[in-house]
Amino acid sequence: MGIHKFFMSMNDLERIIRCPGRFKFEEHNVAAHSWKVSQYAMFFATIEENNGIIINWKSLYEKTINHDFAEIFIGDIKTPVKHASPELKQMLTHVEEKMMEKFILNEIPKEFQPVFFERMKEGKDATVEGRLLELADKLDQVYEAFAELQRGNTDAEFLKMYETALRKILQIQLPKSVSYFKEVMLQDIMAEESVIDVKSITLKILVE
Amino acid sequence: MGIHKFFMSMNDLERIIRCPGRFKFEEHNVAAHSWKVSQYAMFFATIEENNGIIINWKSLYEKTINHDFAEIFIGDIKTPVKHASPELKQMLTHVEEKMMEKFILNEIPKEFQPVFFERMKEGKDATVEGRLLELADKLDQVYEAFAELQRGNTDAEFLKMYETALRKILQIQLPKSVSYFKEVMLQDIMAEESVIDVKSITLKILVE
Amino acid sequence: MGIHKFFMSMNDLERIIRCPGRFKFEEHNVAAHSWKVSQYAMFFATIEENNGIIINWKSLYEKTINHDFAEIFIGDIKTPVKHASPELKQMLTHVEEKMMEKFILNEIPKEFQPVFFERMKEGKDATVEGRLLELADKLDQVYEAFAELQRGNTDAEFLKMYETALRKILQIQLPKSVSYFKEVMLQDIMAEESVIDVKSITLKILVE
Amino acid sequence: MGIHKFFMSMNDLERIIRCPGRFKFEEHNVAAHSWKVSQYAMFFATIEENNGIIINWKSLYEKTINHDFAEIFIGDIKTPVKHASPELKQMLTHVEEKMMEKFILNEIPKEFQPVFFERMKEGKDATVEGRLLELADKLDQVYEAFAELQRGNTDAEFLKMYETALRKILQIQLPKSVSYFKEVMLQDIMAEESVIDVKSITLKILVE
Amino acid sequence: MGIHKFFMSMNDLERIIRCPGRFKFEEHNVAAHSWKVSQYAMFFATIEENNGIIINWKSLYEKTINHDFAEIFIGDIKTPVKHASPELKQMLTHVEEKMMEKFILNEIPKEFQPVFFERMKEGKDATVEGRLLELADKLDQVYEAFAELQRGNTDAEFLKMYETALRKILQIQLPKSVSYFKEVMLQDIMAEESVIDVKSITLKILVE
Amino acid sequence: MGIHKFFMSMNDLERIIRCPGRFKFEEHNVAAHSWKVSQYAMFFATIEENNGIIINWKSLYEKTINHDFAEIFIGDIKTPVKHASPELKQMLTHVEEKMMEKFILNEIPKEFQPVFFERMKEGKDATVEGRLLELADKLDQVYEAFAELQRGNTDAEFLKMYETALRKILQIQLPKSVSYFKEVMLQDIMAEESVIDVKSITLKILVE
Repeated sequence: MGIHKFFMSMNDLERIIRCPGRFKFEEHNVAAHSWKVSQYAMFFATIEENNGIIINWKSLYEKTINHDFAEIFIGDIKTPVKHASPELKQMLTHVEEKMMEKFILNEIPKEFQPVFFERMKEGKDATVEGRLLELADKLDQVYEAFAELQRGNTDAEFLKMYETALRKILQIQLPKSVSYFKEVMLQDIMAEESVIDVKSITLKILVE
Repeated sequence: MGIHKFFMSMNDLERIIRCPGRFKFEEHNVAAHSWKVSQYAMFFATIEENNGIIINWKSLYEKTINHDFAEIFIGDIKTPVKHASPELKQMLTHVEEKMMEKFILNEIPKEFQPVFFERMKEGKDATVEGRLLELADKLDQVYEAFAELQRGNTDAEFLKMYETALRKILQIQLPKSVSYFKEVMLQDIMAEESVIDVKSITLKILVE
Repeated sequence: MGIHKFFMSMNDLERIIRCPGRFKFEEHNVAAHSWKVSQYAMFFATIEENNGIIINWKSLYEKTINHDFAEIFIGDIKTPVKHASPELKQMLTHVEEKMMEKFILNEIPKEFQPVFFERMKEGKDATVEGRLLELADKLDQVYEAFAELQRGNTDAEFLKMYETALRKILQIQLPKSVSYFKEVMLQDIMAEESVIDVKSITLKILVE
Repeated sequence: MGIHKFFMSMNDLERIIRCPGRFKFEEHNVAAHSWKVSQYAMFFATIEENNGIIINWKSLYEKTINHDFAEIFIGDIKTPVKHASPELKQMLTHVEEKMMEKFILNEIPKEFQPVFFERMKEGKDATVEGRLLELADKLDQVYEAFAELQRGNTDAEFLKMYETALRKILQIQLPKSVSYFKEVMLQDIMAEESVIDVKSITLKILVE
Repeated sequence: MGIHKFFMSMNDLERIIRCPGRFKFEEHNVAAHSWKVSQYAMFFATIEENNGIIINWKSLYEKTINHDFAEIFIGDIKTPVKHASPELKQMLTHVEEKMMEKFILNEIPKEFQPVFFERMKEGKDATVEGRLLELADKLDQVYEAFAELQRGNTDAEFLKMYETALRKILQIQLPKSVSYFKEVMLQDIMAEESVIDVKSITLKILVE
Repeated sequence: MGIHKFFMSMNDLERIIRCPGRFKFEEHNVAAHSWKVSQYAMFFATIEENNGIIINWKSLYEKTINHDFAEIFIGDIKTPVKHASPELKQMLTHVEEKMMEKFILNEIPKEFQPVFFERMKEGKDATVEGRLLELADKLDQVYEAFAELQRGNTDAEFLKMYETALRKILQIQLPKSVSYFKEVMLQDIMAEESVIDVKSITLKILVE
């Protein structure tokens, strides 16, 4: 039906709740998450740029706002499920790609199909923008999990989410950004009052 | 961890919303859906029993309350997605089965594992109880879609859901139940006031 | 109007929230509660059957899924209110029975009225299925209250609900089930992390 | 425990939803309803005062803000249920009164008990303030039902609520207020755009 | 359009959430808040009357139920924002007054305009009723903030709201009411179980 | 406190609901809105680029994701309020700017302050990116209002919002984008089934 249908489908992502099935004090939808990721990425791209790295802003813009679009097809399948086995993860990724392909061929006018195929492909590649996306996406997991722990959510899922995302961030190949996160922001996170002791959890991971 | 963990995980199904991502005037969770299915099935089993069919009530009880348990792993992936291609559907079914197997082996005490493997397998088989489950599950789609159409939901998804579920019910091999549904209940459905004209849609399918 | 109206009224139970008027971190509706009760009961019936007790599965199925149906008439009046005085409790029970009688006579087709009168009567009798229903119903109170305490709900109502339901379970005449609950499941409950100290509360009741 | 406990219990009324169990596009809690009733009553009292009637403002204030306080005990039991039979209605009223009595004796300090017994008793008496309360309470039913009909809610309950409340208002012994309602406000209500044809329904009642 | 439009606009206040933008375990709308304020004010007016003060009940009734009506125009702008600078506060107050003036001139029939101008003006003046309104309004901030702290909300906003409102109450020129609040009610508040230590916070302010 | 505090404040925008105080079938928060605006803008920028216009993608990225950030201070004050008088609008804009200035000076580290002052200033300037932002922002009003009209929301606000936003779009100085919107997308919008007759409303505006 065209771009109108594409724009209408964006509304669907406002109804897809992250971490479906788990108890949480506050829900987040995929649309709002995408916006937060685009904000985090812009900040760290600024740090990188200030340190002499050349940023392709168009690419970063495209990657961040589109990185979860495929969730309109199969929803936000929990990270633990995705990673239950490498084989299962691969199968789910394949399903998403097939659905996206079908969507673009059926709904997007021919003249825009190449642009959409480019924009909707997996964004977490080895480019600096791909690494910034990975950092921003994991950072939102840190913040979502942190907020639950801070308010006393004892579900082990959020503890695991916090720890896993934190570990992944610390290994991303963006030395200046990771260093700023670790030396400045993480200090502020640990200084916050929290029902569950996030400071100890964080320190344990930092000394690893 | 055992049965306690299994019981706690049931709570997750109260947080899995059916038809995620679509606009709806009223949301339904998978736990409540399972209860409604167990009610519909009991009613139609009574009709069948009154007509001389022998019902295995234990089996019907097991099939109805467990038929969507696997959704704690990958959520309620929309029917249209499931059926996008037979290949995709098969892949998703396979993922669910693998997750369920893993869950039973990890969480259920050894002594209860055979019982759980039996109860958690696909229930929609060729037995009379399997067919009653199919009827009850489709009937809930009819009711969910009907309620949305009645209140003026113009999303094409619910129209399609109503039509598809209705067509499937009419073909189920339970002549007495289907006849009761068609000749008594469907008349009452068509007699209801409705913002979208459900009567015409229904009549069109009946004459096919 | 018939069975269609009965099926539509089931939807009402999805909108009746348990413990109305109290603050809770997570709400539960009566439909989802009924499903969880039917799950708990099936598990403990399996334990009893494994120990040589004969289970009438049809009866257990009927009792569990219908046990709160009368709440479509007067809602989930809080347990403390019900028990404020034996006289008040009796009056409320009487109101519910009268409403149910009226509903069956007005809405259910004549041919099905005897079945409905049988299914909708109070299920918590002295049969093994009646006791399993009582156990399952109280167990859901334990789980609902536990989840609130675990997340730091200081409302005295949930503490009382937890204690009262626990005490009642320990006195139900189903030795094998109660023993499994006490010796296995309760240990897992006490091992969970919790904002409010559920372990001490539980131990205090166990030594009584 | 005293006035603190009384003030805390007011919060409960924010969680009691009117018309529990029915589908509605918009929910209303008993606290907000009480505020709207106190607003309607003040307006019509002004009309009466302008026409020479003496208003006891303290009494009107007390009656309107307290008229549904007893719902903290048994919730908002639907009007149709209340009126299913005069006997049932009487029983429920009796239950509420007993609970209120118990609450005042247990929670309110002795020095304030007489004031609370006076304020919490049934307010819809034959005084002008009692009649203003009745008018205001029914007017909120008119507005709640109207809003649902206007948005296309086909549940017969709201049609009945609109019609019943409207008929009752037209018979209240407050000629100036009822006349203003009928000749000015009802014209504005009928002039509103509405998915369900409220104008015809209203005109039918007016000609009775 | 007249009084009908005014009554319809009251519904808007049920959708205006207090403290927008902050995380809270429980939301409160402005309509329900207004009702609670009218309840608190009635109680303290009773205390004052018992101590020989003459209460203008009509004025108190008008002041309490109308004090936040202007929020239908610009919503509940957070207290910290309002007070960011005296200049900003003054500007926002001016905006509200202009909107209210416009509303009355456009929507309220001429005959009722003087009454509405009187009722909708700022109520917190130096009269005893103005001081009772101020006390009641601040008390609701105390209760809202207390409930969040009690459940473990670590947002600094609620701590500040609790402290600020408490300090203001203690300085209001209603010696009997403030003394009752301080010597009776505040003791009960401090005796409550709470995830965040409200007792210490309160004691610190009392010794100031 | 630094960037951590800035990132935490983004969460606030997930709790600011657009069009506060109006009844709507579906709510939208400011974070999700910002994401949709960044998507619309990217699409129309592509159209412009395809027609030879040079796009500053970094600027477009910055403008779209930040354009409503100031709403964390005073919320989403309804468009009609904003435009009640040019004087009021100017005052509110001034308040927002003052709050933003204060926030940057207090919370953002000195080294990043120039970047934040640049990014947080009003984005709807005369540049092509400023015009794309204006188009995208108005388009989201069109979609939000359209969805309400389609589902039968009779609130005059949404009709006015649809009409006003549509008229503004048609006058934006981006001939290629506006032409695509008008000749392709608007046809698809008018072809949709809708409870309220959006087609006629749209045609009336097109012929103006």
